[in-house]
Amino acid sequence: MNEIAALMKSMGQAAVSAAAQLAQADEATRNRALLGAAAALRAQRGAILAANAADVAGARAAGLGAALLDRLQLDEPRVEAMALGLEQVAQLPDPLGKVAAEWTRPNALRIQRVLVPLGVVGIIYESRPNVTADAGALCLKSGNAAILRGGSESGRSNAAIHACLRAGLAAAGLAAECIQLVPTADRAAVGEMLGGMRDYIDVLVPRGGRSLVARVQAEARVPVIGHLEGNCHVYVDRDADPQMARAIVLNSKLRRTGVCGAAETLLIDRGAPAALTQLLVAALLEAGCEVRADAGLRAQLGDARIRAAGEQDWYTEYLDAIIAAAFVDGVDGAIAHIARYGSSHTESIVTANGASAERFLARVDSAIVLHNASTQFADGGEFGMGAEIGISTDRFHARGPVGVEQLTSYKYVVRGSGQVRA
Amino acid sequence: MNEIAALMKSMGQAAVSAAAQLAQADEATRNRALLGAAAALRAQRGAILAANAADVAGARAAGLGAALLDRLQLDEPRVEAMALGLEQVAQLPDPLGKVAAEWTRPNALRIQRVLVPLGVVGIIYESRPNVTADAGALCLKSGNAAILRGGSESGRSNAAIHACLRAGLAAAGLAAECIQLVPTADRAAVGEMLGGMRDYIDVLVPRGGRSLVARVQAEARVPVIGHLEGNCHVYVDRDADPQMARAIVLNSKLRRTGVCGAAETLLIDRGAPAALTQLLVAALLEAGCEVRADAGLRAQLGDARIRAAGEQDWYTEYLDAIIAAAFVDGVDGAIAHIARYGSSHTESIVTANGASAERFLARVDSAIVLHNASTQFADGGEFGMGAEIGISTDRFHARGPVGVEQLTSYKYVVRGSGQVRA
Repeated sequence: MNEIAALMKSMGQAAVSAAAQLAQADEATRNRALLGAAAALRAQRGAILAANAADVAGARAAGLGAALLDRLQLDEPRVEAMALGLEQVAQLPDPLGKVAAEWTRPNALRIQRVLVPLGVVGIIYESRPNVTADAGALCLKSGNAAILRGGSESGRSNAAIHACLRAGLAAAGLAAECIQLVPTADRAAVGEMLGGMRDYIDVLVPRGGRSLVARVQAEARVPVIGHLEGNCHVYVDRDADPQMARAIVLNSKLRRTGVCGAAETLLIDRGAPAALTQLLVAALLEAGCEVRADAGLRAQLGDARIRAAGEQDWYTEYLDAIIAAAFVDGVDGAIAHIARYGSSHTESIVTANGASAERFLARVDSAIVLHNASTQFADGGEFGMGAEIGISTDRFHARGPVGVEQLTSYKYVVRGSGQVRA
Repeated sequence: MNEIAALMKSMGQAAVSAAAQLAQADEATRNRALLGAAAALRAQRGAILAANAADVAGARAAGLGAALLDRLQLDEPRVEAMALGLEQVAQLPDPLGKVAAEWTRPNALRIQRVLVPLGVVGIIYESRPNVTADAGALCLKSGNAAILRGGSESGRSNAAIHACLRAGLAAAGLAAECIQLVPTADRAAVGEMLGGMRDYIDVLVPRGGRSLVARVQAEARVPVIGHLEGNCHVYVDRDADPQMARAIVLNSKLRRTGVCGAAETLLIDRGAPAALTQLLVAALLEAGCEVRADAGLRAQLGDARIRAAGEQDWYTEYLDAIIAAAFVDGVDGAIAHIARYGSSHTESIVTANGASAERFLARVDSAIVLHNASTQFADGGEFGMGAEIGISTDRFHARGPVGVEQLTSYKYVVRGSGQVRA
């Protein structure tokens, strides 16, 4: 076995052992570790920023782009946000021990389905150092040991943040191995997490760009909770209230363009009043959004600012102030368009027609379907789940926002009085 | 692309298309298909038994063993049991559309988590032809398209049963591709299901012996619901009622020895009265069970019929009238033994001491933990879940008995009144 494989195996064994301890740690202990880590982040702010400055300098010297540098860079508010995030996770209700269902059988056996940790969660991420704190905190709260593997360009930052998490664990009397950071930039470590650690890792969570997530989903030999792409749609029905539609379309597209819940395609009912169509497109253009429309929409509006959409636009997650727009034949046309081009993430219908709304909600096969609300509500915090580790576009285990409850498994606890089976 | 890969791809595409139809089929339609298939099984009994006779003759000629022949062989009662099974699945509550949780946010968004099908379920099984009917029925009830791949020795039987399922689908107006049977015995088809159909198969369920399940778990590139092994334990505490302990131990081990919920190891509290230990072991021996005990137990009982257990016995799933037996140091000793040697399937504690029971239930990390009840209750039917496709020893998505609800995913349905995000 080579050096990296041996390292990862030893980390995996330590994680399994720590996970067994952590699964039995009570809520107060886990929260004490989270609060201790938050305090350490504040106390070690200087050291974290110094480590981060070295990472940023290294990334600049390596010629990395501005977007990556922005994701990499920390400042005092960002460190404070991490500390606050840890405190918020501490305040979440404890998922462990929650009775998800209970019933009594005719033979008087009392059966409970009780939430327990998944075990060991592996997190593979890119340049954002705050994932170290966020993901570590969600795993800790949900009683899972974490193996964190961040991007090489943020190695010093991650190590400094990880030291704070360890300080929190130590203050609570928990094993340091509850949250481990892979100490090498060698890419073989990622290969081990994907393929070589079936005995130690219960689930992998990739956090980052599309190519990372796609690679993990394609190559992993352990279960993955992956968030691949949010090609989200807003469908404005003929029966939509115009001002509501305008507000929802603008918010869905432009509140933040870089989030996975941002709308990327506007579908308009071909039977909608021309004034409604005009209102929506004009509002987008005036807000500075590029509109790429199909031929029918362009012909009706006759506005030279509207560009022509090509087939590829219907598939595209712009993550920018650009929106594709098309006429569809009513709610069924919208459902068909979304089935063909969508990524099953989040879609919204705007209509005052209850039957059309229910048809859309029932037939659109996405993790989140909304009626008369912005797609930008696709967020664990907005769902009331507290922090999230991502929004799953998988169907297995967890779909939609993944908070601490989605990082659990369950067991059946059965209480009897001497029952035997006939 | 070779011929098998092309075949499996085309089956996968057909399954995805059928799954989209099936997801929208109402409960009555899905139940009509199940009842139609049950009627067809009864009507085609002769053809099924003739096909099965040919399979059995082929298996005999190929020199296959008696255990396999027994699993392969059908008779009139077994065909009737399949038909009854389909009818029972039809009677189960519909999992689809079930609101698993709902809440309202401070901004008045109403959020529901609603059960939806997983999509396409691939089932890989061995010689039992009844799996064709059972697995097909569970998938149909839960709105999932199924791709069934049975053992080559049961090919004619599976095809005859599958024809009945198709008759039921046709009678209900559902696409034949809702339940497909892989028409080739070429083992490359299994390889495609494991590795080449990520775009079409949402989850794989291996049904069969340990080597099949282990292979699927090791090689699959799609999620797996796997049931690997049931090395189940009964722990009899010093505070156990002797007669209750005797009944539970005998039932856990001997009611049926070949099921995954059968107890394989008896753990006895070293502090238990000698008479209790004597009672339990004597009862097992008198019932014809071989007992393999550790040195302490053998020394205390001094019974020449008791064999010596070796280290390997603590790991062994006998599936036979053999039990390993050991003294442990109270409930914590039992927890430690189970953590070291168990398979996280099902374990029971017998005690009148509530604190000991709760400690065991909380700290034993198995899919099912019982207090004062037989391990043989590890069964979807006994849990009130109706039929089951297996008992998962995985932690991801589904753990314990896997019934129709465990074959679902969910989506979030959000109803608003114009909310946009700040």
